[in-house]
Amino acid sequence: MPRTRPSRELQPLEAVAGNGLLHRRAFLSGGAAFAAAVTGYTLSDTAAAQGLADEPSSRKAGVPVQEYGTPSPYEKQVVRTLSNPKAEPRTQHGRTPHHLLNGTLTPNGLHFVISHSGNPDIDPARHRLAIHGMVRRPLVFTLDTLARYPMVSRMAFVECGGNSAPLFSNEPLQASIQAIHGLVSCSEWTGVMLSTLIEEAGIDPKAKWIIAEGADSLALSRSVPIAKALDDAMVALYQNGERIMPGNGYPMRLLLPGWEGNMNVKYLRRLKLVDQPMMSYYEARTYAPILPGGKAYQFYFLQEVKSFITHPSPGLRLAGPGFYEISGIAYSGNGRIAKVMVSADGGRTWAQAALQEPVLSKAFTRFRVPWRWDGGPVVLQSRAWDEGGNVQPTRAEVIAKRGQTAKPVTNPLGFPSQHYNGPTSWAVDKAGEVKNVYA
Amino acid sequence: MPRTRPSRELQPLEAVAGNGLLHRRAFLSGGAAFAAAVTGYTLSDTAAAQGLADEPSSRKAGVPVQEYGTPSPYEKQVVRTLSNPKAEPRTQHGRTPHHLLNGTLTPNGLHFVISHSGNPDIDPARHRLAIHGMVRRPLVFTLDTLARYPMVSRMAFVECGGNSAPLFSNEPLQASIQAIHGLVSCSEWTGVMLSTLIEEAGIDPKAKWIIAEGADSLALSRSVPIAKALDDAMVALYQNGERIMPGNGYPMRLLLPGWEGNMNVKYLRRLKLVDQPMMSYYEARTYAPILPGGKAYQFYFLQEVKSFITHPSPGLRLAGPGFYEISGIAYSGNGRIAKVMVSADGGRTWAQAALQEPVLSKAFTRFRVPWRWDGGPVVLQSRAWDEGGNVQPTRAEVIAKRGQTAKPVTNPLGFPSQHYNGPTSWAVDKAGEVKNVYA
Repeated sequence: MPRTRPSRELQPLEAVAGNGLLHRRAFLSGGAAFAAAVTGYTLSDTAAAQGLADEPSSRKAGVPVQEYGTPSPYEKQVVRTLSNPKAEPRTQHGRTPHHLLNGTLTPNGLHFVISHSGNPDIDPARHRLAIHGMVRRPLVFTLDTLARYPMVSRMAFVECGGNSAPLFSNEPLQASIQAIHGLVSCSEWTGVMLSTLIEEAGIDPKAKWIIAEGADSLALSRSVPIAKALDDAMVALYQNGERIMPGNGYPMRLLLPGWEGNMNVKYLRRLKLVDQPMMSYYEARTYAPILPGGKAYQFYFLQEVKSFITHPSPGLRLAGPGFYEISGIAYSGNGRIAKVMVSADGGRTWAQAALQEPVLSKAFTRFRVPWRWDGGPVVLQSRAWDEGGNVQPTRAEVIAKRGQTAKPVTNPLGFPSQHYNGPTSWAVDKAGEVKNVYA
Repeated sequence: MPRTRPSRELQPLEAVAGNGLLHRRAFLSGGAAFAAAVTGYTLSDTAAAQGLADEPSSRKAGVPVQEYGTPSPYEKQVVRTLSNPKAEPRTQHGRTPHHLLNGTLTPNGLHFVISHSGNPDIDPARHRLAIHGMVRRPLVFTLDTLARYPMVSRMAFVECGGNSAPLFSNEPLQASIQAIHGLVSCSEWTGVMLSTLIEEAGIDPKAKWIIAEGADSLALSRSVPIAKALDDAMVALYQNGERIMPGNGYPMRLLLPGWEGNMNVKYLRRLKLVDQPMMSYYEARTYAPILPGGKAYQFYFLQEVKSFITHPSPGLRLAGPGFYEISGIAYSGNGRIAKVMVSADGGRTWAQAALQEPVLSKAFTRFRVPWRWDGGPVVLQSRAWDEGGNVQPTRAEVIAKRGQTAKPVTNPLGFPSQHYNGPTSWAVDKAGEVKNVYA
C-alpha cells in the first residue's frame, strides 16, 4: 500500500511564517522532487501497474449521456444544507458547501438561497418588469424586449448580510464552513445595466432612491440609492451562462455588486423611482440591527472585505504530517482584493498568499499558500485587504462594536447577526481534526 | 398590449457598417432615450400598473428550496441535444445550446459531451492516476493525495476537433447553432498543473511524449508532446467550482487548453512518458483526416481562432425592425482574442465588436455589437483575430484546402470533418427568420 514518506528533502524550502507556512512561490523555482517527499507516493513499477488494475467500471459501458448533466452519484454529499427542509411557512436557507468546492465560482445548483416563501413558479412569458414613478415615461419590459438591449457579463459575489453570523456567538459553533459562511456565493451574471433602463425611462433629477420589488408572494422590497443604481447595478437574466435558477430569482433579479444579498431583489418586477426610501420590512427591521449602545445600523449596504480558509476546514481531516496547500476565498464589496495574509500560529506571524488571476472586482478571489504541517497543533487564519486599503477587523474589534450572542446562532435572525467580517480561526489538532475556535 | 414604436429618434446614431451596424460604444455616450425608440415599450402609468397585476405565482408560497438546484421547469428546452439518446453501442454526442445561453461560460449541466461507451461509473475512492515510463520514480496518486498539491484555476474552452463539421458540406445544414457549433464549451477548471506532477516523478530527458489513458471501457488514449505537458496542461479535478461532471471526466481529466477536445483525456488514469507517440486509434485514424491531395493531417492538435454569432441565430426569430444586440462567442487555442469584426451585409463592410472583459487566453470571449435592423434581408457574419495575429480563414479557403462533403454532415465522422474554423453566416429574412447560409 502507498505510504507517506516524511523526508529530509524538506530542508531546502524555508518557512516564511510560523508553523510551516512556505513562500507562495515556493514551487515556481523548480521545486521538483520536493513535494513527492511530503505528499506523493513513490512506488515500484510493479506497484504502479497494480494501481492500474481495471476497476469494474472500466470493463463495461457506462451510463448514457444526459440531456442536462448532474454530478456523479458519488458526490451526493455535495449539496446545500437546508434550514427548513419541509418548507414550513418560514424562511428557508440553503447553504453553499465551500469546503467541498474549489476555484472561484459557485456552480448554479449550489449557489446559496434564502427564500421567505419558497421559490415562486414564474412563467417567464407572463413576467413583466415595470420602471415607473419619477421618470419621464414609465416602461414595462418583457423578457424578450429586455433581451434586445446591450448586455454585460460580470463575475460578482452575492452575500447575505447575515452570513458568518455564528461568529458573533460567545462560543465557537462546532460545524463546517457551510454553516458558518455558506450564505455567500459567486457567479457570472449577464444582463442589462440598470443605468441603461433608467436612462431609457428618463430620470427625474429629484429621484434619489429606487424601490425594487420582487414577484414572490411577499413582494420583497428594498430601497436602493440612485447612485448605486446608476453605477454598477444590473438587471440580471443569466447566471453562469444559463437562465437564473429559481432560487436565485428566475427569470430576473436585481444585482447590486458588493451589496447586502437581500437588496439584490429576486423575481424583480418593479423599479419605482422615488425621492425617499420606503422603509420596508427588511430595511427597517431585519437589516437595521440594534447595537449595544441602543442605536441601530441603518442602510448598512456594503458587504465589507472578508476571507476564510476553505481547505483545510472543519470536516476535512488532514491525513498526516507533510505538505498541504492552504486555500480559501476572499472578496470585498469595495472592489478588488489587494492582499491576503495567512497565519498558522493564530495570528502571531503571517505569510502572504498567492492570488488566483484574474483578480476581479467584487468577486471571489481564490488565495493559496503552501504549507508544511509538522503534525503539531496549529491555528489557521486568513486576513484580507481590498484595493481601497480596507482590512478585515479582528474579531475583538467587531464584538466591541456590536456585542455578541450568548450561544451559537445559526440562523441570521439573532442579535447581533449582521455583517460579520472578522477573521475565522481553524484549530488543527494532532489527529488532523479541524475545529472552529476563537483565537 | 405593448407594441414596438419605430421612431425618428434613430437618426442621431450613425451606422458604422452596412445594414445598420452601430458603433460598439454607441451607448456609452449618453444614448438615453434612444433605445426606447427602437425596443422599449412606452406605456401610460395605467398600463404600467396593469403590467404589475399579480400572477397566480405571486399569490401563494412557492416550491421548496432544493439541496441541489435545477433550472426552472419553463427552461426544459434548454438541454443538450443527444445524437444517440438510447445509448446504443456507438458514440453519443450531447451538444451545448449556445443560442439559449449567454455570458462567457457554459453551465456544467450543458457542457458538451462526447462519450464513446457511456460515462463510466467511477468510484473516486478507488480511482488512481499513475505516472510512469521514462521517469525517475513512478508515482500513483489518489484523489486525496492530488488534492494536497498546489492548484490553479483557469477558464478554458474545450472543443471537439469535429465541431462545426456541418460547415464542410456543400449545402448549408438547416439547423440551430447547437447542431453546428454545439461541440465546444467553456468552464473554469481547477486542478494541479501537470508540470508539477511530472517534475515530481522526475523526467528522463529522452522522454518526448506522454501517453494519456482514460479509465473508460475503451481506455481512450492520446499522445501529448512533452512541451505541451510542461506548458499549460492540468490534471483537472473541479469544473466551475464543483467536481467534474461524469460526462466530462469525473473524477479527473487531462486539460490541454486550446487543443483538440479528444486529447483532453477524461477519466484520466495513466500518464506514461515515452520517446515516441503511440499512434492510438484516435490520433492515427479519426483525427488524421485524409485531404483532397491524398495526404492526411497528423497531429493537428490546435483548435484555431473561431467565432460565431449566437444572438440572433437559427431558432431565435427577430420580433420586428428596430434595435438588437448582436452577440456571440470567439476563442482561440493560440491565446487571447484580439479583435472581432461583425458584418451585416455578408462580409462587404464590417464593424468592430466590443469584447467582454476580462479577455482570457484560450477561453470564450463574448463579443457584442449594437444593431438597428431596418427589416430587410441581411446576412450576419463574424470574424475573429487572436493575439498571435491569426485570423479565421474564409470558408472558400477552408474548402479549397480540405474539400467538402456532398451533403450535410452532423456527426464528425465524415470526410472532411475536422477543424473547421471559417465563418458562419446567418441570413435574416423579412419575417425575422434566421437561417444558415453560405455567403
